[in-house]
Amino acid sequence: MDPCAANDPTGDPAPLDPAQFGTGDMDPEAFRQHGHAVIDWIADYLTDIGERPVLAQVAPGEIGAALPAGPPRQPEPFPDALRDLEQVLLPGITHWNHPAFHAYFAITGSGPGILGETLTAALNVNGMLWRTSPSATELEERVVDWLRQLLGLPDGLRGVITDSASSSTLTALAAAREAADLDVRRRGLAARDEVPRLTVYTSTQAHSSVDKAAITLGLGHDAVRHVATDARYALDVAALAAAVRADVAEGCRPLAIVATVGTTSTTSVDPVAEIAALRDELGDELGVRIWLHVDGAYGGMVALCEELRWVLDGVEQADSFVTNPHKWLFTPIDCSVLYVRDPATLTRAFSLVPEYLTTGDEGVTDYMDWGVQLGRRFRALKLWLVIRYFGAEGLAERIRTHVTQAHRAAAWCQGHPDLEVLAPTPMSTVCFRARPQWLPAADEDELRALNHTLLERVNATGRAYLSHTELDGRTTLRLAVGNLRTTDERLTETLQLIGRELAALRDPG
Amino acid sequence: MDPCAANDPTGDPAPLDPAQFGTGDMDPEAFRQHGHAVIDWIADYLTDIGERPVLAQVAPGEIGAALPAGPPRQPEPFPDALRDLEQVLLPGITHWNHPAFHAYFAITGSGPGILGETLTAALNVNGMLWRTSPSATELEERVVDWLRQLLGLPDGLRGVITDSASSSTLTALAAAREAADLDVRRRGLAARDEVPRLTVYTSTQAHSSVDKAAITLGLGHDAVRHVATDARYALDVAALAAAVRADVAEGCRPLAIVATVGTTSTTSVDPVAEIAALRDELGDELGVRIWLHVDGAYGGMVALCEELRWVLDGVEQADSFVTNPHKWLFTPIDCSVLYVRDPATLTRAFSLVPEYLTTGDEGVTDYMDWGVQLGRRFRALKLWLVIRYFGAEGLAERIRTHVTQAHRAAAWCQGHPDLEVLAPTPMSTVCFRARPQWLPAADEDELRALNHTLLERVNATGRAYLSHTELDGRTTLRLAVGNLRTTDERLTETLQLIGRELAALRDPG
Repeated sequence: MDPCAANDPTGDPAPLDPAQFGTGDMDPEAFRQHGHAVIDWIADYLTDIGERPVLAQVAPGEIGAALPAGPPRQPEPFPDALRDLEQVLLPGITHWNHPAFHAYFAITGSGPGILGETLTAALNVNGMLWRTSPSATELEERVVDWLRQLLGLPDGLRGVITDSASSSTLTALAAAREAADLDVRRRGLAARDEVPRLTVYTSTQAHSSVDKAAITLGLGHDAVRHVATDARYALDVAALAAAVRADVAEGCRPLAIVATVGTTSTTSVDPVAEIAALRDELGDELGVRIWLHVDGAYGGMVALCEELRWVLDGVEQADSFVTNPHKWLFTPIDCSVLYVRDPATLTRAFSLVPEYLTTGDEGVTDYMDWGVQLGRRFRALKLWLVIRYFGAEGLAERIRTHVTQAHRAAAWCQGHPDLEVLAPTPMSTVCFRARPQWLPAADEDELRALNHTLLERVNATGRAYLSHTELDGRTTLRLAVGNLRTTDERLTETLQLIGRELAALRDPG
Repeated sequence: MDPCAANDPTGDPAPLDPAQFGTGDMDPEAFRQHGHAVIDWIADYLTDIGERPVLAQVAPGEIGAALPAGPPRQPEPFPDALRDLEQVLLPGITHWNHPAFHAYFAITGSGPGILGETLTAALNVNGMLWRTSPSATELEERVVDWLRQLLGLPDGLRGVITDSASSSTLTALAAAREAADLDVRRRGLAARDEVPRLTVYTSTQAHSSVDKAAITLGLGHDAVRHVATDARYALDVAALAAAVRADVAEGCRPLAIVATVGTTSTTSVDPVAEIAALRDELGDELGVRIWLHVDGAYGGMVALCEELRWVLDGVEQADSFVTNPHKWLFTPIDCSVLYVRDPATLTRAFSLVPEYLTTGDEGVTDYMDWGVQLGRRFRALKLWLVIRYFGAEGLAERIRTHVTQAHRAAAWCQGHPDLEVLAPTPMSTVCFRARPQWLPAADEDELRALNHTLLERVNATGRAYLSHTELDGRTTLRLAVGNLRTTDERLTETLQLIGRELAALRDPG
């Protein structure tokens, strides 16, 4: 290698047929033609999606083996790729947009959301700075404020869109670390004798992203205290107070509390207002600022329904709050909104402006200062289209429908002689398990095996997809409602399927 | 609030007109109709994009003021939103897909890439686990391996798609921290007397994401050493060796070196092979493992052209390498690929599997274990479509065209009596400034002001968009080529525009 070649690197490339390779993009008229075909494919896909197997019924490696080992040398016609999408890839797709997808949290990539993504890709703006697309920044500011209003949250919260709740929570805890005024940004956490052990409190039901954020930020997994919950799986405030005081006695400094509105396993709701009051009390007592972050990634959206808005009581006292339109607001992955009360703390944690990113623009928001990522997709566009297309009342009515459907499923489980409901259903997820009358003496190991078998059998039919969790040592099945195509009829069919597969376990003949 | 209400929260909601609000998604036939309109809008947009002002010519707050303060209560027709996109938002869009976008790094959201995003949004899968869409995982594994082959990198590198190079570099340095075997994952960085001060080395020309990663990971900004560069803005290996040895003498432990292939200001290329050799030598001498990460976010892609592949010499000895298809591989934002030699180190840094994410699937890749984010878009699909549509030779030819165009622009600047080129042009970015013959005695302050004025004047025309940086205290203008619509004719027009605006500075009449 001769670095002097750097100014003359083109050498003598073999000439290519320009008619074949060209130098430009897909021609706009070809784009129009292929684009219409893609839209038609999607319209057909969404029409018939309920007849596809929701959980992919393929073995590991099967899809990969059907794909060429290397890239094509020559260009390939676009319709060939669309054909391979259908024939090669679709059998290995687990259909998250399916009416019988009830695993994890059920979601929807809605029509207006899909078209929003299309437009975002066409504009292809990077909203790192206000200047690099003023509309991207100002629409983001506006649309996250619309969402704030939809959730009944007070003025004064400022929002930013990130890719996922994992990122939002990491960002929030980085702000918490900055708010501790320990000069961690400059000196790091290993500064000798000057940084105490910092601890983070959350419940045993909290999402693993809290742990992952603590690990990533260098606080360490041991820094996370998983506080006990009550019988409803909500954080036990007395246990939280005891945990903080015990740690302080050991020389730790409480950095943050993460409360959850809609936990991953059961959608339980931590008592945020009580936690906020305790945070204030402990902060005064200990003379430190304790950051309160609220994870409402899924559950926050029920606050669109006024009668369910109580779940966000106390969030107005939090320092930060995350909720994900890509979970239960019909917006395609990815779209998470992080709200903060004091953006200055967040930007103090993250802002870095090299010369090549200076602009001289004043009084503007440069969202690159609000987190890790410099490159930022124009995600606000799809959220704007979703909110406009459904409207505030239409969105609330859809959330309400899902909650009602979940209650119906819970009632059905409750009434079934061989099933039991294991947790309240405050939102749209039912936690239940088989506990058959015909196995009255079954111990936990037998019930675990039985429920895993039931789950596998249901999922293997391709007619519905459920997931599982564990509650107090009991294997628990989860049925989450959240897809806009889940009709009452289809839900009934899923419940019947569960009943049928359970019956078959008793009588395998 | 009565938490006991959690099981009966629906109350008595006011009934809505189901014909107006419905409970489902946009009807598939309506989707087809609106989708065709969106595709047509994009085809027209891409046809005429070159006539729009590339840099948005609006004042701060202007776009936000034109948007309603609150969300609509009732649903709104989809065409209304499309009209507002055109009338309200477009004036505030800086057009990154524009043929005369030459700021930062020029990019393309290509036709196949746009349609890939559309399909990704429709499928709306979350590829967190293999099981949650086997095709998402196996296509990602395959397509990043295709890209590895396209770049001439050796077997044995495994790749993962992230959103941005900032995230990829953060992820790589988290793996470096894990590889140091200091139990940081569990105990954090503040473990007393057991974690030494960890230092990270990169050049003065490195991207700010290296600094941001060090801050985020708790290493602290002071941990980053910015090593001097040579006259070509490439990292000075002797200075690197001296910096590491000086730090070790002070009790620091060198954690990682970040080399850059295509720096942000000048696209200079650090001598990766020499750096790798030094890394080995220092590692043996000091008895520690020093991680080598290579940032080829933009520049890595020139290796698609065999005659330019030397830029990646030595990358085969790196522990990790990032390159961004969303920068110079015509893939819409966001798409960054992080390669690692030892995925086990990466997953040891990040893997956390709560009960609700266990699957029992064996021998599969669960990409949630490879980084911070749990929720993961199906980004491989657009990259697959881009590579297939253009083909390996077509992609290389396009990169080659951009390099040739940049050389032409550099030669023009070099030949202009009032301009000077300030750095080599190994890739597709030209660094230059005005240094007019008619101001022979101008000092650096005058030249700074003059060049900023020239930049503002060019950008204010809306006919081209350039950015700036600083090199050795000299304000430098940057013209980056990378959009597929940049014809030779349009580039000529941009160069003439620069010449005209410069001439007007001499003779304002």
